Amino acid sequence: MPGPVFGHIPGYPVGSRFENRAALAEAGVHRHRQAGISGSATKGADSIVLSGGYEDDQDLGNLIIYTGYGGRDPATGRQVSDQPFSLWNRALAYSSLNGLPVRVIRGEGHESRYSPSAGYRYEGLYLVDDYWQDRGRAGFLVWRYRLIKLPDQLDQESDQQSGTESIEVPSEAPRRETIVLRNVRDTKQARRIKELYDYRCQMCGIRLEGLPGPYAEAAHIRPLGAPHKGPDTLDNTLCLCPNHHVLFDHSGITIDEDLSLVGVEGRLAVHPRHSINNNHLRYRREHYQANT
Amino acid sequence: MPGPVFGHIPGYPVGSRFENRAALAEAGVHRHRQAGISGSATKGADSIVLSGGYEDDQDLGNLIIYTGYGGRDPATGRQVSDQPFSLWNRALAYSSLNGLPVRVIRGEGHESRYSPSAGYRYEGLYLVDDYWQDRGRAGFLVWRYRLIKLPDQLDQESDQQSGTESIEVPSEAPRRETIVLRNVRDTKQARRIKELYDYRCQMCGIRLEGLPGPYAEAAHIRPLGAPHKGPDTLDNTLCLCPNHHVLFDHSGITIDEDLSLVGVEGRLAVHPRHSINNNHLRYRREHYQANT
Repeated sequence: MPGPVFGHIPGYPVGSRFENRAALAEAGVHRHRQAGISGSATKGADSIVLSGGYEDDQDLGNLIIYTGYGGRDPATGRQVSDQPFSLWNRALAYSSLNGLPVRVIRGEGHESRYSPSAGYRYEGLYLVDDYWQDRGRAGFLVWRYRLIKLPDQLDQESDQQSGTESIEVPSEAPRRETIVLRNVRDTKQARRIKELYDYRCQMCGIRLEGLPGPYAEAAHIRPLGAPHKGPDTLDNTLCLCPNHHVLFDHSGITIDEDLSLVGVEGRLAVHPRHSINNNHLRYRREHYQANT
Repeated sequence: MPGPVFGHIPGYPVGSRFENRAALAEAGVHRHRQAGISGSATKGADSIVLSGGYEDDQDLGNLIIYTGYGGRDPATGRQVSDQPFSLWNRALAYSSLNGLPVRVIRGEGHESRYSPSAGYRYEGLYLVDDYWQDRGRAGFLVWRYRLIKLPDQLDQESDQQSGTESIEVPSEAPRRETIVLRNVRDTKQARRIKELYDYRCQMCGIRLEGLPGPYAEAAHIRPLGAPHKGPDTLDNTLCLCPNHHVLFDHSGITIDEDLSLVGVEGRLAVHPRHSINNNHLRYRREHYQANT
């Protein structure tokens, strides 16, 4: 199976109906034909199907408490062992760490007033807000996930800004609502820079390791969007830990011409295959330097 | 003048009209009777009025590029010196650093297709997404701000979660959209814990200093919201830097019974006036411990 594909699937807007799991898989909306979670432990989960499921699951519409995969007897459906933190359970946690959107599909077998009366319905994108372990009624550990609905009109290539991400929510025309997420999504470009540096901060060298894997943030030197119009290219991007990202965004740190850091000790580490554009660094200095 | 009041003012929904600046001030929607920015350099700006303003300002509706205060000749309106990073300019930057919402009011004198034809109109809450310095046409430095509109129905006391914040956006009933902000707003409780620790991380002792002031995040030990239902009290809250907040949220760090840290070196620093509830710590350990 190819890697996960995040976000809406073109041609299948929120509300799309599917007769069965085979149709869901063919459309690419939920590609695994049996499992409730689709995705990869190292790249994230891109979709889940709610159908039947655990007695402790809660479906409040825009807020879903979802139980992970495994540890159940296929014949009886009863929990007979702990759920492992591997495969799809890890995939959903990876999506949480990296702010990746998960497609949610409700099936007729799912006990909820939001379920379709027949077949399956694509319900839109959710964020995995949190995940943790619970001891189920049979005494075994299960993984649980808290999913929060994103606006249906999430534009995945929308206006981005260093350290934040905007989600435009077209409402009654001509006004458009916009929200800012601090949690930068794991876009292809962001992932490239983070992998190049193996998730180490270019300013302090720290590598943060959460349970689902390492964490770093991609920061733009010359910001994207109006009025700066910096490009979303590798030569305009840095790999930073959240602490140095905050300092960089709020002029606590500037980068000098020789790559030494102003505001903290040290020098920007640059990988041999990472060519940073000096014009973007100059733009940054000219507009974000502290005037103390 | 009393301190800034953030968010919607009860009784004055988005779209409320005001005849003049005196009426705006009496309503508490924009309390300063002359200045375009209202607020405090150390607590943030709570509102701005767009009226006339700088030739470089841009008003795209949900995205506004706004120029700061000062350096203009009152008689001619021309820029005659650099704008200082003080007073209201600093207040808007503080709001940006801490994710505080700013009320935006458009006046009839504001050149924009979004302006009211007469008087003033309250337009809703915006986030200060970014701020920087530009050299204006007269050669002097000005401060500029990028404001992004939040949903009109922002519920300030909405469901909160450690490290994230949900904004509920009622759309066509009965569905409600929800967005998650990583940038935790500077709520009263969050501010108390951060001030108690002087913005130092309880795990590593670091104190991040951005241009507008120090930065730290409040983290809940037992998460708020369903299904955890942790309380929003000081004995359930920690003051952390963003790096340790990410690790704490993603089970890269747990806190042992004796307050030693598991996952990194060290021990949780606890202020004499900060009594942490052991039940919340135990809840956290039971549900967020790495099972490696």
